[in-house]
Amino acid sequence: MTLRIALIGTGAVGRGILEALSRKDLGVILTGVADSRSGDICEDGIPPLSLLKRKKETGLCGDPSVKAEDVVKTAPYDVLVEVSPTDAGTGEPATSYIRTALSRGCHVVTSNKGPIALYYHELKKQADDAGVSLRFEATVAGAIPILHTLHESLGGNEVHALYGVLNGTCNYILTRMAEEGLSYKQALDEARALGYAEADPTYDVKGIDAAIKLVILANTVWNRDITLSDIDITGIDLLTEEAIRLAEEQDATIRLIGEIIPAKNLYRLSPRIIQRQHPLVVHGSLNAIIIRTDLAGDLVFSGKGAGSLETASAVLGDILSIRDRYAGGN
Amino acid sequence: MTLRIALIGTGAVGRGILEALSRKDLGVILTGVADSRSGDICEDGIPPLSLLKRKKETGLCGDPSVKAEDVVKTAPYDVLVEVSPTDAGTGEPATSYIRTALSRGCHVVTSNKGPIALYYHELKKQADDAGVSLRFEATVAGAIPILHTLHESLGGNEVHALYGVLNGTCNYILTRMAEEGLSYKQALDEARALGYAEADPTYDVKGIDAAIKLVILANTVWNRDITLSDIDITGIDLLTEEAIRLAEEQDATIRLIGEIIPAKNLYRLSPRIIQRQHPLVVHGSLNAIIIRTDLAGDLVFSGKGAGSLETASAVLGDILSIRDRYAGGN
Repeated sequence: MTLRIALIGTGAVGRGILEALSRKDLGVILTGVADSRSGDICEDGIPPLSLLKRKKETGLCGDPSVKAEDVVKTAPYDVLVEVSPTDAGTGEPATSYIRTALSRGCHVVTSNKGPIALYYHELKKQADDAGVSLRFEATVAGAIPILHTLHESLGGNEVHALYGVLNGTCNYILTRMAEEGLSYKQALDEARALGYAEADPTYDVKGIDAAIKLVILANTVWNRDITLSDIDITGIDLLTEEAIRLAEEQDATIRLIGEIIPAKNLYRLSPRIIQRQHPLVVHGSLNAIIIRTDLAGDLVFSGKGAGSLETASAVLGDILSIRDRYAGGN
Repeated sequence: MTLRIALIGTGAVGRGILEALSRKDLGVILTGVADSRSGDICEDGIPPLSLLKRKKETGLCGDPSVKAEDVVKTAPYDVLVEVSPTDAGTGEPATSYIRTALSRGCHVVTSNKGPIALYYHELKKQADDAGVSLRFEATVAGAIPILHTLHESLGGNEVHALYGVLNGTCNYILTRMAEEGLSYKQALDEARALGYAEADPTYDVKGIDAAIKLVILANTVWNRDITLSDIDITGIDLLTEEAIRLAEEQDATIRLIGEIIPAKNLYRLSPRIIQRQHPLVVHGSLNAIIIRTDLAGDLVFSGKGAGSLETASAVLGDILSIRDRYAGGN
């Protein structure tokens, strides 16, 4: 059976997915696409390569009269792939799209942190009631398949603690401050120039982005019901060169570490001094995660935390899991 | 639905599984058990804790007149969990047990490298024809769910290369030689005293164990059909203190690295000089793996490569994947 997907969002992640689909035969066809400006529906499949070309040449992925909500409501798809920009405050319009897809009995894969951080339990219940999957690997740690690993591969384990470097922008800034003796501002300007940081970097450097990932982990792995306000957050924006220099003098360095210890209801994000040989000391824009389990002991994962193809990898992993699990039909 | 399993093998791995089952409610019951000396079948489920006690007190897991093959042939189970000792030369008796289970239309989970290294394609075809799963996460890298990750989470990726520290005994010996200036023989004796090395350590130190894992990876991830003789193998048994000292003088060290580059048909295991900061420089009996992919970039995994509960973690992950996938019934 061929799996039919509708793609909402044609930014960096959406383009990564289209590029991957154009290069591989994954048994998936695209029957709908939309972004904030236009949309397209085609039962026989939209070729990813011509879609990429159209988007590049015209800035549009389809007809301006076709809205994203039309595609979500009416396109014939098995899986809604929702990769529109995150609105961490409201989760919209992504949450509405996801609800609509689930109410149609369709699976949902999203890279969008808003809906999952804000409404996970509600959406999960709706998915369970409909007998479909809701997957969101790309919301945490980019290319590292940490949710798949925690939810499935390590299903027999209790996970006692998780520690992670979950924001590549902050890690890039901290790496450059330590390695080159740059000031916070110099490192931030460099990160901006290289496209690692947004024009407004608040969301990253104040720790909001990483903290949202902790909310998603806590609620989906440990079945908690916490929000951003339950996380004890310290960003990196007030870190001085002096603090980093002092750490370096002791064969240590500083990393922004997210931490979950479920038995203690501890959810914290803060800059921590750690030994340079510690497995969480990854460099540049990498992410890293340690999990502490009862059977498997400590496991460490590291890889790229962001990027167009890297995030597409996580989204495709989710899509293919659905394809394999429901291969008999939707 | 409760999943019924039959466990063949009550050595370290089997005991780890029984211990985990006794501590957790995983929706799994044990309807058969056997080792080389005795066996037991009970439709209503054998309590793991009393089984552990019986084994400890009497050395037997059941009735000496009940043979393992009787359990495999007649016990009422959904999944055969085959964790008997590996015979890398013949794969027996495990391979026969697995064939019998598959011919009964039952799923198979094994930690046994012999059958998978020797007969993977044949067994996989038999499983596919029967519409059941054949899973073997525990055969490679212990607690690290590398096969699950490669087969499923990263399903959208092409994996261009894999590099790994796949034998904890060798890694322990190399770590101790580098850190304490021990000779190969001293480090090996220490590994033996701590139970990391067998009385006859040939299988580990000559690289056979790690090479078998490369065969399993090549055949199952890249669908090759290679055998041990296709791997270019150098063990660590001829390494001198001098070689390690020279590496250490250059801020480097030596690790036994397995390597697969499928496009070049390159399958190699050899001691390599690598920089101390390299992610494959893990310490003690840890394992580590780097995979190089087209979408997700480079990903690094590390964790315990062996151990009773660690291997049980991998086996349970496989069992639970089967439970989740076939939840509707066998």
